Amino acid sequence: MDTPRIAIDAMGGDRGAAIMLAGVSRALSADPSLRFLLVGDEPAIRAELDRHRSLAHACEIEHAPDRILGDDKPSQAIRRAKTSSMGLAIAAVKEGRASAAVSAGNTGALMAMAKLALRTMPGIDRPALAALLPTFGANDVVMLDLGANTECDARNLIEFALMGAAYARTAMELPTPRVALLNIGTEELKGTEELKDAAAALRAAGPLPLSFSGFIEGDRLSRGEVDVIVSDGFSGNIALKTAEGTARFVTDLLRRSFTSSLRSKLGFLLSRPALHLLKVHLDPNNHNGAIFLGLNGIVVKSHGGADAKGVANAVALAAKLAREDLVRRIARDLDVYRAATPSEAIPAQ
Amino acid sequence: MDTPRIAIDAMGGDRGAAIMLAGVSRALSADPSLRFLLVGDEPAIRAELDRHRSLAHACEIEHAPDRILGDDKPSQAIRRAKTSSMGLAIAAVKEGRASAAVSAGNTGALMAMAKLALRTMPGIDRPALAALLPTFGANDVVMLDLGANTECDARNLIEFALMGAAYARTAMELPTPRVALLNIGTEELKGTEELKDAAAALRAAGPLPLSFSGFIEGDRLSRGEVDVIVSDGFSGNIALKTAEGTARFVTDLLRRSFTSSLRSKLGFLLSRPALHLLKVHLDPNNHNGAIFLGLNGIVVKSHGGADAKGVANAVALAAKLAREDLVRRIARDLDVYRAATPSEAIPAQ
Repeated sequence: MDTPRIAIDAMGGDRGAAIMLAGVSRALSADPSLRFLLVGDEPAIRAELDRHRSLAHACEIEHAPDRILGDDKPSQAIRRAKTSSMGLAIAAVKEGRASAAVSAGNTGALMAMAKLALRTMPGIDRPALAALLPTFGANDVVMLDLGANTECDARNLIEFALMGAAYARTAMELPTPRVALLNIGTEELKGTEELKDAAAALRAAGPLPLSFSGFIEGDRLSRGEVDVIVSDGFSGNIALKTAEGTARFVTDLLRRSFTSSLRSKLGFLLSRPALHLLKVHLDPNNHNGAIFLGLNGIVVKSHGGADAKGVANAVALAAKLAREDLVRRIARDLDVYRAATPSEAIPAQ
Repeated sequence: MDTPRIAIDAMGGDRGAAIMLAGVSRALSADPSLRFLLVGDEPAIRAELDRHRSLAHACEIEHAPDRILGDDKPSQAIRRAKTSSMGLAIAAVKEGRASAAVSAGNTGALMAMAKLALRTMPGIDRPALAALLPTFGANDVVMLDLGANTECDARNLIEFALMGAAYARTAMELPTPRVALLNIGTEELKGTEELKDAAAALRAAGPLPLSFSGFIEGDRLSRGEVDVIVSDGFSGNIALKTAEGTARFVTDLLRRSFTSSLRSKLGFLLSRPALHLLKVHLDPNNHNGAIFLGLNGIVVKSHGGADAKGVANAVALAAKLAREDLVRRIARDLDVYRAATPSEAIPAQ
């Protein structure tokens, strides 16, 4: 598809239509070929379109009478698939009226709705949630799973490795992404049976469109030594949130240090242009766009608190993944893996 | 015991006897009542004692012909329990010739040797490794388990909660430590069955010498909202290492920012006294001393790369835990928990 049409859940996120449309507008400026289906409360969307007149020609509106709130349970949300902006945005992907959906709404609800509407890809046991973490390297690192699957077997981990690598090839244009499994040590004997089995199978596999780097520990996530880090959803969620929380902890300490005296305030003013680089590097808006991998369609989750730039990044990511047909890439990679793997090395289902 | 005698593995850690004795000397200056059993290569220890003459009266030397190296496997190490400085330091605790041991050696070997020699306390299923993480609060937070137990059931988690709380009461003098379980959400329905069962049992228990705060997520570890964070060894190891790695990542980015221009270098010079506070707050030497909880004896693990101040902190911690008789406190707390808990709420062994 040369001109992706992105379905936007205009009502999700902390600031709803205002920030979503500002983000869409920004994404359109960067890529004028994009087209949008704006799903949500029609009057609210029209009001925002009045502020972004250049958007009008690229957008169609689909009215949704309802919206999913941040604290709605997934079980409540799925009953509103046909009335809520989130549900209708996903339905547009399912029905082929959009090539991808972007929502800044409740992650659990989005996952449940996307899974129910789009279904898991053939050959994939469980979809996974992937996100990006900043590194010292040239690109972010892809982390998955981040909470969709609390417990995972070796087969799940191998599928996450293949899906994460396909995602890194597509989103970051890395021909052979380096993939590692998150573990509590790097020796082959470390960790759970599931991790050891998954590592053995990936080592035993023939040529794959990824480079398997073995295990990686929690203190090296941001080193830029690998491109994809695979874990069960429990550990991955703990690792990603701990990384986010610690980055905030250190930058808050830094802010307190700078404001602790007149002298340090002056030092801050002098250093500010350089510190801006630090801020840009750590700004979640620059690493925005989590994605559900393993579904028959592309659904990108934007941070609930993302600003217009963050939303534009999520939209650009969705467009790129749609153009490159991520879903087909994953299907092809699964076939390559199965063909390249001695049957005894594939862990039982 | 009013004058604790601490067995020091003088040969462990990255810099061996030089740094261990410098740390012991520092600890003795702060608390002249301490006494030491220095275990290791006698000539090496004597050479260092010559540099710290004020130590001599407080120390006895026990020669050990062997030492455990950083990459020795636990299975190799335990065979050298009677010849290595690490093994003999632990043996001194077992035999009552020392009230606690401090080693900066290989964590896996130390755990294996300590467990074999000191045995697990009656009523405790598995010992755990606890360490300290800096926070915004008035004190550090205790985290356990950090890798001793890859998989844990509800009973293990409850025991970790009780042991961690006893440790926080002893080491940080908190009368009623706030204890939380590390999880991927704070709602009662989140996480593994083991976590849900452990939380239910801790909620159902009668008055305990701790305040149970429910679940905590990875992004709030450093908030100072709780005093003890309990997890299985896999997640705990991932969380602690991710926190350490991310803190280093951000401070490295900061250093790069400051050195990126002459102007920012000048700003750094002006802010340096204030930034020193940040450095002190994050310096692992100020949070040094991991401990194995649940054994019949006190074994403190100093960071392999700790400086003299770090070693002195680990020694002071060991002395404090010995004086307050941590092992007996844990035993008492277990009795209180069992008496205060309806029998149906204690998860099966």
